[in-house]
Amino acid sequence: MADLETARGCAETMYANDRASKALGIEIDIPAAGEAVATMTVRDDMVNGFDVLHGGLTFALADTAFAFACNAYGVLSFAAAAQIEFLRPAMLGDVLTATATEDHRGRRNGYYSVEVRNQRDELVALFRGRSAAKSDTSILEKT
Amino acid sequence: MADLETARGCAETMYANDRASKALGIEIDIPAAGEAVATMTVRDDMVNGFDVLHGGLTFALADTAFAFACNAYGVLSFAAAAQIEFLRPAMLGDVLTATATEDHRGRRNGYYSVEVRNQRDELVALFRGRSAAKSDTSILEKT
Amino acid sequence: MADLETARGCAETMYANDRASKALGIEIDIPAAGEAVATMTVRDDMVNGFDVLHGGLTFALADTAFAFACNAYGVLSFAAAAQIEFLRPAMLGDVLTATATEDHRGRRNGYYSVEVRNQRDELVALFRGRSAAKSDTSILEKT
Amino acid sequence: MADLETARGCAETMYANDRASKALGIEIDIPAAGEAVATMTVRDDMVNGFDVLHGGLTFALADTAFAFACNAYGVLSFAAAAQIEFLRPAMLGDVLTATATEDHRGRRNGYYSVEVRNQRDELVALFRGRSAAKSDTSILEKT
Repeated sequence: MADLETARGCAETMYANDRASKALGIEIDIPAAGEAVATMTVRDDMVNGFDVLHGGLTFALADTAFAFACNAYGVLSFAAAAQIEFLRPAMLGDVLTATATEDHRGRRNGYYSVEVRNQRDELVALFRGRSAAKSDTSILEKT
Repeated sequence: MADLETARGCAETMYANDRASKALGIEIDIPAAGEAVATMTVRDDMVNGFDVLHGGLTFALADTAFAFACNAYGVLSFAAAAQIEFLRPAMLGDVLTATATEDHRGRRNGYYSVEVRNQRDELVALFRGRSAAKSDTSILEKT
Repeated sequence: MADLETARGCAETMYANDRASKALGIEIDIPAAGEAVATMTVRDDMVNGFDVLHGGLTFALADTAFAFACNAYGVLSFAAAAQIEFLRPAMLGDVLTATATEDHRGRRNGYYSVEVRNQRDELVALFRGRSAAKSDTSILEKT
Repeated sequence: MADLETARGCAETMYANDRASKALGIEIDIPAAGEAVATMTVRDDMVNGFDVLHGGLTFALADTAFAFACNAYGVLSFAAAAQIEFLRPAMLGDVLTATATEDHRGRRNGYYSVEVRNQRDELVALFRGRSAAKSDTSILEKT
């Protein structure tokens, strides 16, 4: 319970300042500590001439879910590395959901998996990220 | 010579339709077939509360360079997978340059490396991508 | 039921011919179709001067579990790509268990995760693999 | 010059103790600091029933070249993560050469690329590795 409160407090603080995720229209939900769900609707300014979402923005959605999942413990963590497999194109108007879960969390590094699915629950991309914690930096400085 | 003309023709056709890359302010140069240089200035709507560029947008820049490098041969290719290592944060106002080169190109798959550097020539990220060609689809349909 | 029988039949056929896995002392169990458990004891000829297992052999164990997991459907599949994170050294005498599970299986490509743990159930490595199926080649040719 | 001497001294010390690489018949050459060339002949105990080299051993060869390349500076480094793309099978009797080069070396982490080629100079695999240095541990303890 306390863990979930901390996780949600971290997410609120991060989101309040995250102009990039807001500019992409990404919304965040924290179902549990170490997990995050990010949703994004594919807009006209996110696609190419075939109305296919730019792969970089598919990644950005997954990366956002990952960032919120790994920043659940009060200590600032950042993305150190990530890998993505693009399985199916996302199209203009699609509503994408990225669900991040924690595979393993060590002292310094955490390992997360993210699935990106469309509104038909089809798998669009598989993402894995490694986070690194800055042990001396708190997310919730003022609380 | 003819190769470079084809590569630049493909890039022009792609760029004309690429609303996503344009919305990010990305510009493209094609120094040689199989290579591409993409530049982007970090704007206010791309950063978080610490004025650090969203990692997803660092990836998007690298991915754009990769996409233009692998689409140099007239046959439509798409990103199948990619991996990124984040080495140094990029900050508000930084001018980033992503340089993509070809490691290997087989019949169906191509392998590309991208370096992202800032205006001080410091390495911001290392990116690798695998492309897959749609052998039946031309980029330059009308030429 | 029939699926598990097929999976185990494929594994038996593969293992009978797999001199490399046998030379490494690897044993295989198939708990379900799309899953595989591979075990290996770290021998004297597998370590360096610090009695630490060669990372290539940690990978080989995980890769073996992956190969048996993705070859459960009667169609020959091979490893196309893989990625490993080394979390903790494995030492001379350790008994390692690699457990492969299926993340997603498409028409041509399959995606698998493998965890390698030691006899104290500590995580030694995280592995991800992409398989590619040769749709015209059966594993169980003679059965 | 002094750099190359240090690199070769580190390689000799490492190789003297590396039972695993020796058991695989791997030989090492250090052309420059931060580079390494590892060669291996595909033996009967390294293949499966199709006389194809176990992918884990292709990785082990590349990983060995990587380990010798990143341990050129006197400070003990270990493999933290690696990624491999399998492009072409290696067959019984093939002589494989893995050439590791340094992409970037920071304070703690180094990034290396390895190409594995056969005796016809055909590309067998592309490998990337991230090393992590143990800043308090010397390879050349007695010098």
